[in-house]
Amino acid sequence: MSHPFRSFIQKYTSLPDTDWDEIEGHLEKRIFEKEDLLLREGEICQYVYFLESGFLRYFVWKDGEDLSKFFTSPPYCFTSQRSLSQNIPARESIEALERSEVWMMKAEDAERLFRLNSWSTFVRKLVQEVQHFTEEILAEVQNRTAEDRYRDLLQSGHMYLQKVPLKHLASYLGIAPQSLSRIRKKLLLETRT
Amino acid sequence: MSHPFRSFIQKYTSLPDTDWDEIEGHLEKRIFEKEDLLLREGEICQYVYFLESGFLRYFVWKDGEDLSKFFTSPPYCFTSQRSLSQNIPARESIEALERSEVWMMKAEDAERLFRLNSWSTFVRKLVQEVQHFTEEILAEVQNRTAEDRYRDLLQSGHMYLQKVPLKHLASYLGIAPQSLSRIRKKLLLETRT
Repeated sequence: MSHPFRSFIQKYTSLPDTDWDEIEGHLEKRIFEKEDLLLREGEICQYVYFLESGFLRYFVWKDGEDLSKFFTSPPYCFTSQRSLSQNIPARESIEALERSEVWMMKAEDAERLFRLNSWSTFVRKLVQEVQHFTEEILAEVQNRTAEDRYRDLLQSGHMYLQKVPLKHLASYLGIAPQSLSRIRKKLLLETRT
Repeated sequence: MSHPFRSFIQKYTSLPDTDWDEIEGHLEKRIFEKEDLLLREGEICQYVYFLESGFLRYFVWKDGEDLSKFFTSPPYCFTSQRSLSQNIPARESIEALERSEVWMMKAEDAERLFRLNSWSTFVRKLVQEVQHFTEEILAEVQNRTAEDRYRDLLQSGHMYLQKVPLKHLASYLGIAPQSLSRIRKKLLLETRT
């Protein structure tokens, strides 16, 4: 069976065997247990990550509160881009919400691989995709209420809704856990009638 | 003097003369007068743009209201990425807020240029930069009030504050023009005391 990261790259661009061999040579596998941090706010991010299985959460600390920014489910390739590319401390932490299998590549190796057309195209398309996601989230936050966004999440049928503790989902939606409980009760009543 | 787009690309990556000659061969200059649209919501974006002079606004229509999303001042390279890369109707319009000199490159030419290492690197780094900006705006919208964001804008000393009509600045901040007037008056009083 093909390596999961290889199959992932091939969704974005064609990948000659020789290019893959070179990419694979720079990958190292690590297991993160539940609540382990892949990256801690304030550290400089040194890796590009590929999530093969598990589930991750990006969060920041603000005024003593832990605020969830994004969730990542497999298969996906990610990093703390700003920290990695500018060599500055990360402003967010990345946490495993469950046991996660992760492939890691050192930043300098990822940088050197840019001479491969396949890798360069893959990264460009991936960053474009992440940019689309970020724009969508921005548009949602600007235009829709927390209740509407929660409805959308429910309708999208994202498996991860079952995996995210209520408090993290609430901070992702920018509301208090109590408010999310209220919204949930309201929707439950709507479904029943 | 070097072409302004050439100098712009060189801020991101080294650019051999032969690569620039090829890039330049695909550029066409157009002048947009004040209130002209470079792109209209619902159209498929066919170009990559470089703004040499002038000032632009991205906006969307929502429930009959014109909402400002971003402002772009020169020199900058931009497009409606989602529309361009997926060949689907743009969800936003781009308007010249003043007379603007714009260089345009057809989407298929931009695509073909990706075999040049310089162009590929430039676009990747630019998209990464845009991704950072979008993330910053998202973090601001999630974490800060309209008043705080307006204070930040004032302190950043962006020249464009003087150029943006109040109604556009208000919708960018996600508030009514009346609320922005109130904030302005409040800050004015603070400065005086």
